[in-house]
Amino acid sequence: MRNSDSISENQSYIKTESKKLKNEGSQLIILQELHDTKYFCQSENVAHFDLAIPIPSDNTNFYSKLAKETQTVIVTSLFEKRAPGIYHNTAVVFDSDGSIAGKYRKMHIPDDPGYYEKFYFTPGDLGFNPIQTSLGKLGVLICWDQWYPEAARIMTLKGAELLIYPTAIGFDNDDTQAEKNRQIEAWKTIQKSHAITNGIPVITVNRSGFEKNTESDSLGISFWGNSFVAGPQGEILFEADINPISKVIDIDLNSSEQVRRWWPFLRDRRIEDYDEILERYID
Amino acid sequence: MRNSDSISENQSYIKTESKKLKNEGSQLIILQELHDTKYFCQSENVAHFDLAIPIPSDNTNFYSKLAKETQTVIVTSLFEKRAPGIYHNTAVVFDSDGSIAGKYRKMHIPDDPGYYEKFYFTPGDLGFNPIQTSLGKLGVLICWDQWYPEAARIMTLKGAELLIYPTAIGFDNDDTQAEKNRQIEAWKTIQKSHAITNGIPVITVNRSGFEKNTESDSLGISFWGNSFVAGPQGEILFEADINPISKVIDIDLNSSEQVRRWWPFLRDRRIEDYDEILERYID
Repeated sequence: MRNSDSISENQSYIKTESKKLKNEGSQLIILQELHDTKYFCQSENVAHFDLAIPIPSDNTNFYSKLAKETQTVIVTSLFEKRAPGIYHNTAVVFDSDGSIAGKYRKMHIPDDPGYYEKFYFTPGDLGFNPIQTSLGKLGVLICWDQWYPEAARIMTLKGAELLIYPTAIGFDNDDTQAEKNRQIEAWKTIQKSHAITNGIPVITVNRSGFEKNTESDSLGISFWGNSFVAGPQGEILFEADINPISKVIDIDLNSSEQVRRWWPFLRDRRIEDYDEILERYID
Repeated sequence: MRNSDSISENQSYIKTESKKLKNEGSQLIILQELHDTKYFCQSENVAHFDLAIPIPSDNTNFYSKLAKETQTVIVTSLFEKRAPGIYHNTAVVFDSDGSIAGKYRKMHIPDDPGYYEKFYFTPGDLGFNPIQTSLGKLGVLICWDQWYPEAARIMTLKGAELLIYPTAIGFDNDDTQAEKNRQIEAWKTIQKSHAITNGIPVITVNRSGFEKNTESDSLGISFWGNSFVAGPQGEILFEADINPISKVIDIDLNSSEQVRRWWPFLRDRRIEDYDEILERYID
């Protein structure tokens, strides 16, 4: 989706689209990262902490009601106020009866020009745990987590049946077209690779549209959309373009079993030789 | 390359091509998996253990001499006879002075119809260690290892400057064209993903040509070639087709530093939360 400055406008858009999707047969609705607001991390501004909300709160009640009303499981991405000075980038999953099925706090926090997330988000402390819902176990991760095979692997080993990435990534308009192509290709490749190595479908939902940076010298970010769904061999089942879209995609959860029989990567892992993964660097 | 049944014919081809590559400016030569013989793992036959060679031996002396003569570093892939009943699938790296710089024993061993490697190869016991050469630290892995992000990650954390995969993978002629496409795309995607997540170039050299299976019911394997080189953003620098080819490709080892400054994935790893990677499965 493309966001406005108004939380109620964004939520009203989500409500309308969710009802449309439900009518088209959706059982699971995935929203993009931080869908209630513009992407406020383009600069470091203490006032933006006012956007954070407790969980549960009136805000989560909105999604709880929407999930119950549409009888769908909804994966949201919210700015969580946990305590004064402790804020998280948190995915809250609502089950189709309106209850909170679970939450995931973003574990890998980026920080680079235009994405000052280390200022806003305390690194998650809930680990990598799939969330049990009435539709199955969802391996919900968030944005920057998508670059880490470790996160996808642990979710898989814990029984996740789908990997899900709400995300907000875009182009710096100063980059060359060649660099933009490399970035978007790399972003698709790394996420498809999690599908392949784990034999599991991947759903990635990205923000769309240009958001001006009003608080610093840089122009802003052109969020590149391109949300996609890949099957357990990394094959593309659906791919959006740069524009906003709400669409129902069929995913066959039984295909993982078939693919893992032929590509038994999980069988041959050398777990007794992976200890060094736990090191920062080996000098 | 495409292989014949004759070891001396295969070695003679390698010698001719290596000299040609040297004349074209090559400093590093990568050969495909088990380049001295046909891919003998299509069936389980104890007679094939006769193909294994000790390291060092007359056979490795051939490559030692070739490396010295061409003053190039050569990455070979040999069937190692270590002791009666202990055989490995081993990459031996020769430095440009003809010395053995180091070896890597294939850690992840596949076993599926047509690739009965668990019968022939004892799993490697040297761990994941880059090999220091006069050209830098080479992260040499072999074929099935390419599906494991863990292997690529450990090589990177230990200072590898390149990831190198000699490989032998092909199509089962019974597969549909759609399945073949999914396989070759998945194979490229997973290896490009190691480049991306680790900010490191990847070189993959695959066998080419059809090899008939003379010892069982299945037809044989059409090795799909498609050797490629990717830069540290996963961008393709060179891609072969299904035919044999020997070609010099430029790789800029300094690009990793630049890419890792902008994509600092190694900085943000949550190493204190990765312990579960060491488990087989978490029930």
